[in-house]
Amino acid sequence: MPDSPAGFARPAAPAVVGDPISGIDTPALIIDLEVFESNLALMREQAARAGVRLRAHAKTHKSVDIARLQIERGGACGICCQKVSEAEVMVAGGIRDVLVSNQVVGPARVRRLARLAHQARILVCVDDPANVDDLAAAARAEGVRLECLVEIDVGMHRCGVMPGAPALALARRVLAHDCLRLAGLQAYHGRAQHIYEFEARQSAIGNAIALTRETVALFAEHGIDCEIVGGAGTGSYPMEAASGVYNELQCGSYVFMDADYRRVLDAENRPGGLFASSLFVLASVVSTAVAGQATCDAGLKALAVDSGPPRVHGRDELDVLGVADEHTILADRGRTLQVLDRLWLVPGHCDPTCNLYDWYVGVRGGRVEAVWPVSARGCLV
Amino acid sequence: MPDSPAGFARPAAPAVVGDPISGIDTPALIIDLEVFESNLALMREQAARAGVRLRAHAKTHKSVDIARLQIERGGACGICCQKVSEAEVMVAGGIRDVLVSNQVVGPARVRRLARLAHQARILVCVDDPANVDDLAAAARAEGVRLECLVEIDVGMHRCGVMPGAPALALARRVLAHDCLRLAGLQAYHGRAQHIYEFEARQSAIGNAIALTRETVALFAEHGIDCEIVGGAGTGSYPMEAASGVYNELQCGSYVFMDADYRRVLDAENRPGGLFASSLFVLASVVSTAVAGQATCDAGLKALAVDSGPPRVHGRDELDVLGVADEHTILADRGRTLQVLDRLWLVPGHCDPTCNLYDWYVGVRGGRVEAVWPVSARGCLV
Repeated sequence: MPDSPAGFARPAAPAVVGDPISGIDTPALIIDLEVFESNLALMREQAARAGVRLRAHAKTHKSVDIARLQIERGGACGICCQKVSEAEVMVAGGIRDVLVSNQVVGPARVRRLARLAHQARILVCVDDPANVDDLAAAARAEGVRLECLVEIDVGMHRCGVMPGAPALALARRVLAHDCLRLAGLQAYHGRAQHIYEFEARQSAIGNAIALTRETVALFAEHGIDCEIVGGAGTGSYPMEAASGVYNELQCGSYVFMDADYRRVLDAENRPGGLFASSLFVLASVVSTAVAGQATCDAGLKALAVDSGPPRVHGRDELDVLGVADEHTILADRGRTLQVLDRLWLVPGHCDPTCNLYDWYVGVRGGRVEAVWPVSARGCLV
Repeated sequence: MPDSPAGFARPAAPAVVGDPISGIDTPALIIDLEVFESNLALMREQAARAGVRLRAHAKTHKSVDIARLQIERGGACGICCQKVSEAEVMVAGGIRDVLVSNQVVGPARVRRLARLAHQARILVCVDDPANVDDLAAAARAEGVRLECLVEIDVGMHRCGVMPGAPALALARRVLAHDCLRLAGLQAYHGRAQHIYEFEARQSAIGNAIALTRETVALFAEHGIDCEIVGGAGTGSYPMEAASGVYNELQCGSYVFMDADYRRVLDAENRPGGLFASSLFVLASVVSTAVAGQATCDAGLKALAVDSGPPRVHGRDELDVLGVADEHTILADRGRTLQVLDRLWLVPGHCDPTCNLYDWYVGVRGGRVEAVWPVSARGCLV
């Protein structure tokens, strides 16, 4: 089976460094570099002020270039990713401290994970004793050490053992293997990030913190230290950072923001939150033939809609009527738009939107300053 | 700017020809080749029986290999696609009759379209007089002829001029250019494909047929012949095929089917429709730590959810509780599932699901028979 069948190159980048913004082909995934850098700096300061580490989540951007900037300029101690194949891309790109914040199961996948530990510090979440044994066997076979975080279910009900005694039992299973290291706890409540009502979100995270605190205390009673107590995301990190229990934040979306996190932070009445939108889908109007509407060239292939449709940046009066495979349809009652007019769309959800693209186009001062591959796009396994 | 920065290869295929199905890495996009070939044959027969052409829509699959099979074995006269960059991939792969069933605007994109006409018959939809002139200028500059379908809005309200006189005026604009050919009308009602109630769908398509019939008659009165009157999709094609007006069907999803089209055809009480599901996302359970649940390794990066969550093939009792970025969470009250168990998920919407993958894995008789690239994945412009 050929690796690159005829006609199977990556799609070409929609711009070249130095192009004016008007020269970018659409739809394109744009980063406003000024805002992006400001977001990087703000999170670095937030973590430093709280005295916790930042392990930035690369699932948001899937980009080696951005992961490097998070470490070199954004204060991150390392990164998280969600899949072994993503970790392989990140390690190949020079990242030397990677947590796969997920369960890695199956002999082939576990073996691939262990191989990475020759080149980088590799951590992984566990919630199953048999999986712990599999990881140990793979680490032993490779002659490496894998580090494990015992994942506890602090309210998300997706993965993770129950806090308290079940977590302790699993920690002991990890400790029983010389080629594994128990690095601590994973206690992430992803669903709580997206609760719009501040009190409800505070309550959910408060509960997660309490369960985590009890488990850390139980571990301490049994002489087990947690170097890492990790979790938190852009929608909740101030609470975990102030908890005195969590010591590693796993925020990802802060670099870009999206329409859904904007709703979360607006509802909280944090003044716009700290972070501004740096990620846009640049689209062009392709038809105004239907009266009172404009149709643009970015649809489901260019925008994830699982968290709602995009909003039109700076044009709040343009309602989104629908998102089809290749089009977003806008109400334009004032007939202000013409064919080839450009729109800056803020995606509803940044992570799966970025996974639709092969390239980021970084802009500053009206010009293209960077073209970065979405290096781990499509890394599913 | 390097075309292939370090670490930026396509993700590896999840299987090799000859592997047993159990050897496929997950999540993977699977085609059941028996069902797929049956779907191909059924649509060929349907079109032949109705005396209409099939111009299969490649937006569903984005695959040169499948487009070729649709032409060589599935009775298609050519294909449709939605973007110039998709057409480029299809023409490079040897397809010689391509309709871009969409508006192609902007000088660079129009020029790329015209260049393709050196190698293949290229048709495009138009709904704007200035765009017609741009297409003519590009065709003239390239020394080629582009063929145009005047798109009329028959109820979808996305693109297209009004039927009747406005369509006639635009047709005359096309006819005014020697380097353009007026090939006919595009009259597609995509939204109607997904109306679950049969009577409502029938009414919407009936209206589209009436508007198209009037426009064809008006053209005839003015001595303008429509070689092609195109439209229709998997959810409605028997109506257009029987209309006596449409002569080219643009069905795409019939090759795969998906959970949403299944709902459409079930509601109609066509016995399962004619087409069966040939497309699956093969997923593995990665965690059963949360009581009464199983979490598998295919989430928003592996399944488009714009038309609802996936269903679990053959396991209707497993309700989908949620689809997160990397996980689908299932209720498993009977605790029937274990880590590494495999599930065959039927995606809610096939087109954007296929766009998430780099590879199709075709299976037959328990083994991998084909590994096809999703050759036009990510072709956005």
